[in-house]
Amino acid sequence: MSEQATVKALVFDVFGTVVDWRNSVARDLEAFGRAKGISADWTQFTDDWRGAYQPSMDKVRKGERSWTVLDDLHRETLDMLLEKYRIAGLGEADRDHLTRTWHRLSPWPDAVAGLTRLKQKYIIGTCSNGNVSLMLNLAKHSGLPWDMIFGAELVQRYKPDPLTYQAVPKLLRVTPGEVMMVAAHNYDLLAAGREGLKTAFVARPTEYGPHQKRDFKAEHDFTVVARDFVDLAAQLGA
Amino acid sequence: MSEQATVKALVFDVFGTVVDWRNSVARDLEAFGRAKGISADWTQFTDDWRGAYQPSMDKVRKGERSWTVLDDLHRETLDMLLEKYRIAGLGEADRDHLTRTWHRLSPWPDAVAGLTRLKQKYIIGTCSNGNVSLMLNLAKHSGLPWDMIFGAELVQRYKPDPLTYQAVPKLLRVTPGEVMMVAAHNYDLLAAGREGLKTAFVARPTEYGPHQKRDFKAEHDFTVVARDFVDLAAQLGA
Repeated sequence: MSEQATVKALVFDVFGTVVDWRNSVARDLEAFGRAKGISADWTQFTDDWRGAYQPSMDKVRKGERSWTVLDDLHRETLDMLLEKYRIAGLGEADRDHLTRTWHRLSPWPDAVAGLTRLKQKYIIGTCSNGNVSLMLNLAKHSGLPWDMIFGAELVQRYKPDPLTYQAVPKLLRVTPGEVMMVAAHNYDLLAAGREGLKTAFVARPTEYGPHQKRDFKAEHDFTVVARDFVDLAAQLGA
Repeated sequence: MSEQATVKALVFDVFGTVVDWRNSVARDLEAFGRAKGISADWTQFTDDWRGAYQPSMDKVRKGERSWTVLDDLHRETLDMLLEKYRIAGLGEADRDHLTRTWHRLSPWPDAVAGLTRLKQKYIIGTCSNGNVSLMLNLAKHSGLPWDMIFGAELVQRYKPDPLTYQAVPKLLRVTPGEVMMVAAHNYDLLAAGREGLKTAFVARPTEYGPHQKRDFKAEHDFTVVARDFVDLAAQLGA
């Protein structure tokens, strides 16, 4: 506990770590398809949509395009996929509704209970690549009790840019070691650790369904490894 | 209700509007004085401290000094006042504790009940000149259920700079008219209204105790005038 005793705030990766985007999006698209009489392999559509996630941010990361929030990247990918899947006749309202499926994701079963416990003892916030409005709508939808939305949009950089992590202790006026980053992805915690943040790994081995290839376990020496958020709360004395 | 029907988020001035800084700080200083055996007119000390609030921000507003967060301005004023009141022998820990009295303010009696109702229907956030960590600590201390901390530090400008208000709809990806600014100060609402935000005035006629000189009532044509936050929730259908 000694290393953890100084922690004052926890910030969380969100997609995959807090919420189950894959089943949520697939269900939402299926319901939309049924209502509109459009048939498609919506699970594959979901995987394709998420598959474009890192490549679309890479263009911003490399400076090939100016700062663009995730909602807009999601929308661009959606437009391409609708064409690829030959789904025609969807207007602006439908496309906006579909893009906002990413605002309606369900949390993993332990997430709200764990966060609610952690919030009693720590400041809890997001440190996600999702934009502020996406994070706030998601919090409302799923009852995620954040104290604050940190993350990409506040610094106009996508993780794992060092600024995204550095901004948290800076805004909290604490040392980097007084902040703990929580994620289900090794790369995210490695990057947070390089900026001096403490790190907590929580495995989400079904995030990508049968296509999961990595992040089955902590591959580095993180501060804490927890089974889920309730276990994390217990380990942190919350 | 038609003008209000489109509102999606409410942002609040905090000092004076949500919390009773004057009685809170005076009580906190008195307790500190008793514990340390220091006698002083702590209510006058409180009024002097707050009296330096606008002048200290004015130096930043006019560009006479670079961006400085409110915690640091509070600390500089504290150091000056301790000298003026000839209170000697206080080290760094005591001065830090005293500066953080502004993180331990009590809400007006209706505030938490009203905010809790409003949060069911709207995104609620701060739009204060207090820095993010001050706002987060205050929220923890007083149970203020904010969804988000907006305000001065995110744009490194002090209200009534237009950027402080413009940043809210920008981050929420809504129109300015979909955001309502709530304050007990006419100047703050006038400035928010100039940026297209809707406005709600809630009088706090005892904010400055016997020294209150203004803001006894709404002096302009604001969207809503409410008795307190519970009345505001009722008027907004929350």
